[in-house]
Amino acid sequence: MEASQVEFEHPRKAFGWAARDSSGLLSPFNFSRRDIGEKDVALKVLYCGICHTDLHMAKNDWGNSIYPFVPGHEVVGIVTEVGSKVKKYKVGDKVGVGYLVESCRSCQNCVENLENYCPKSILTQGAKYTDGTTTYGGYSDSMVVDEHFVIRIPEGLPLDAAAPLLCAGVTVYSPMKYYGLDKPGMHVGVVGLGGLGHVAVKFAKAHGLKVTVISTSPNKKEEAIKNLGADSFLVSRDLDQMEAAKETLDGIIDTVSAAHSIQSLIGLLKSHGKLVLIGGIEKPMELQAFSLIIGRKLVGGSLVGGLKETQEMIDFAAKHNVKPEIEVVPMDYVNVAMERLAKADVKYRFVIDVANTPKPNS
Amino acid sequence: MEASQVEFEHPRKAFGWAARDSSGLLSPFNFSRRDIGEKDVALKVLYCGICHTDLHMAKNDWGNSIYPFVPGHEVVGIVTEVGSKVKKYKVGDKVGVGYLVESCRSCQNCVENLENYCPKSILTQGAKYTDGTTTYGGYSDSMVVDEHFVIRIPEGLPLDAAAPLLCAGVTVYSPMKYYGLDKPGMHVGVVGLGGLGHVAVKFAKAHGLKVTVISTSPNKKEEAIKNLGADSFLVSRDLDQMEAAKETLDGIIDTVSAAHSIQSLIGLLKSHGKLVLIGGIEKPMELQAFSLIIGRKLVGGSLVGGLKETQEMIDFAAKHNVKPEIEVVPMDYVNVAMERLAKADVKYRFVIDVANTPKPNS
Repeated sequence: MEASQVEFEHPRKAFGWAARDSSGLLSPFNFSRRDIGEKDVALKVLYCGICHTDLHMAKNDWGNSIYPFVPGHEVVGIVTEVGSKVKKYKVGDKVGVGYLVESCRSCQNCVENLENYCPKSILTQGAKYTDGTTTYGGYSDSMVVDEHFVIRIPEGLPLDAAAPLLCAGVTVYSPMKYYGLDKPGMHVGVVGLGGLGHVAVKFAKAHGLKVTVISTSPNKKEEAIKNLGADSFLVSRDLDQMEAAKETLDGIIDTVSAAHSIQSLIGLLKSHGKLVLIGGIEKPMELQAFSLIIGRKLVGGSLVGGLKETQEMIDFAAKHNVKPEIEVVPMDYVNVAMERLAKADVKYRFVIDVANTPKPNS
Repeated sequence: MEASQVEFEHPRKAFGWAARDSSGLLSPFNFSRRDIGEKDVALKVLYCGICHTDLHMAKNDWGNSIYPFVPGHEVVGIVTEVGSKVKKYKVGDKVGVGYLVESCRSCQNCVENLENYCPKSILTQGAKYTDGTTTYGGYSDSMVVDEHFVIRIPEGLPLDAAAPLLCAGVTVYSPMKYYGLDKPGMHVGVVGLGGLGHVAVKFAKAHGLKVTVISTSPNKKEEAIKNLGADSFLVSRDLDQMEAAKETLDGIIDTVSAAHSIQSLIGLLKSHGKLVLIGGIEKPMELQAFSLIIGRKLVGGSLVGGLKETQEMIDFAAKHNVKPEIEVVPMDYVNVAMERLAKADVKYRFVIDVANTPKPNS
């Protein structure tokens, strides 16, 4: 293994895996982290989930990637050092870092603990930090993060399975709360059974909801019902099934980013039902105004969650035993994992065992 | 004038104007109304607003019209008789009838005073009543309606100007309440300045909101601001204006039924902003998922309002002096009025002076 491309802007040496170009292939990378400031927490990374965003950004799918790119925003680790004014954490604490490491702290969204909607928020990976340096994510041995953007991992939650909650978990939890799809007895649909969808099923069940999984693949039915606890299953391509299920759902969490019709999903909603998009279909979708007007339905979006809500979500997960289904892999398996993720060949989230991966000499 | 096509299924003689075919032309029509039941109220019709729906149904635009078709669902009149078990009204009361005359009374929507979303609700015009006979609207001298579907016109509201509130009024009032766009200090947009839009501006101002009118016609600016009380005006085809107004609105009430882009409207919303469609664009619209996800925005619909809310709306209108701008016309002007309405040549709602129109001999 080589790690010849290096970056030492900051005083603290760090090691991780980075993509160097739009091939998206990751390789070892020596770089640096800033010294801890008064409010910073330094952590040793133990586990990091692989999110589809990592793959998109590694391959520059959105045209704004900065290389070298160290992915990773579902980070779980142990606090190794704290700044003089850090109040919430001490050395040895089990903590997590999600997809943000900074925000403006003063806009209306920040004031309302919705840092995820702050227009000046800074992503954990591949963004420009306030000092102009690049942010490097959790596919690395260590991180330095302001304590405001650090989450406490509650007791009772396995550290590896906790990692995907920091992005996938809050991404599905937040819209259930905001759109009021968290009331016991409600019937919700979850479209897509991947990293996001399978956690959506688990949170929905933990909220006491009836859950129908909606998928193009009939062969996911047994898994959805027997292993994940869904109550029923709809094959979205089966028009008879879809027709029979018309106007039965209070809400739908749509996790699919591949192009698909939302019109048939709106048809599944009862009056006042809510279709929430979190998958981010890139192609424009068709929408019939009357399908919303007749039953006062809505189509809304949601993007991850704020820090306060992320803590609430992970505490809820610990209390209600909501654990993502994961496949733990070593760091040097990451390129294979990315390939398999692109083919949806994972049940349901890869988590990198970062701390147990040997570090090459630089 | 002829009224040769007659209908006498019921014991009470009635007279109105009906369309006979998809030409949509209205002509005098002798017909009948049912005897009053225990819970029925009989009323003499004084005024009736002309809604765009009347025009669509007269011309069978939606393919489901029943002829002869007597339009009219913005009806104001005086009670002439009440059934033995009527509790809310007495002879001489000033009352209104909106776009519904019956619903199932037992579904979840009915239980929650949302009769407008009851799948078995019966329209005031051109629908089949529970006894199988056709419902005839308020372009007629009298009506018989169950008291549950009758609204009390509060003191202080002119009876002619009150008429359009019964459909247009509640159609704009209801979504402001449901979507939370009624909080003083909020900034909302109103798209389209017709029968619905101009009332939306007035209700929004009465709620203490800042209002921006969004229209394709720059020449409506003065009217919107000086006469209707809007705070500002945006020409939707002026891309510079639209760009400058990006992310400034908490919500938008879109009253336009002609095809138009909703994507640029979504761009005007702040994060968590809400675009509410009440106009009913028939052509499928394009929607970009990311435009909703990034700022947790939503696109929703709304259809008129329930009876309880209609009463609340009209009481609010009386209290806050919300009065539609109307042009009062005689009954025999109705075909000209319909033509002018199709060309948007009215400021802003025609109201038929039904009671003062001479009745031909049948």
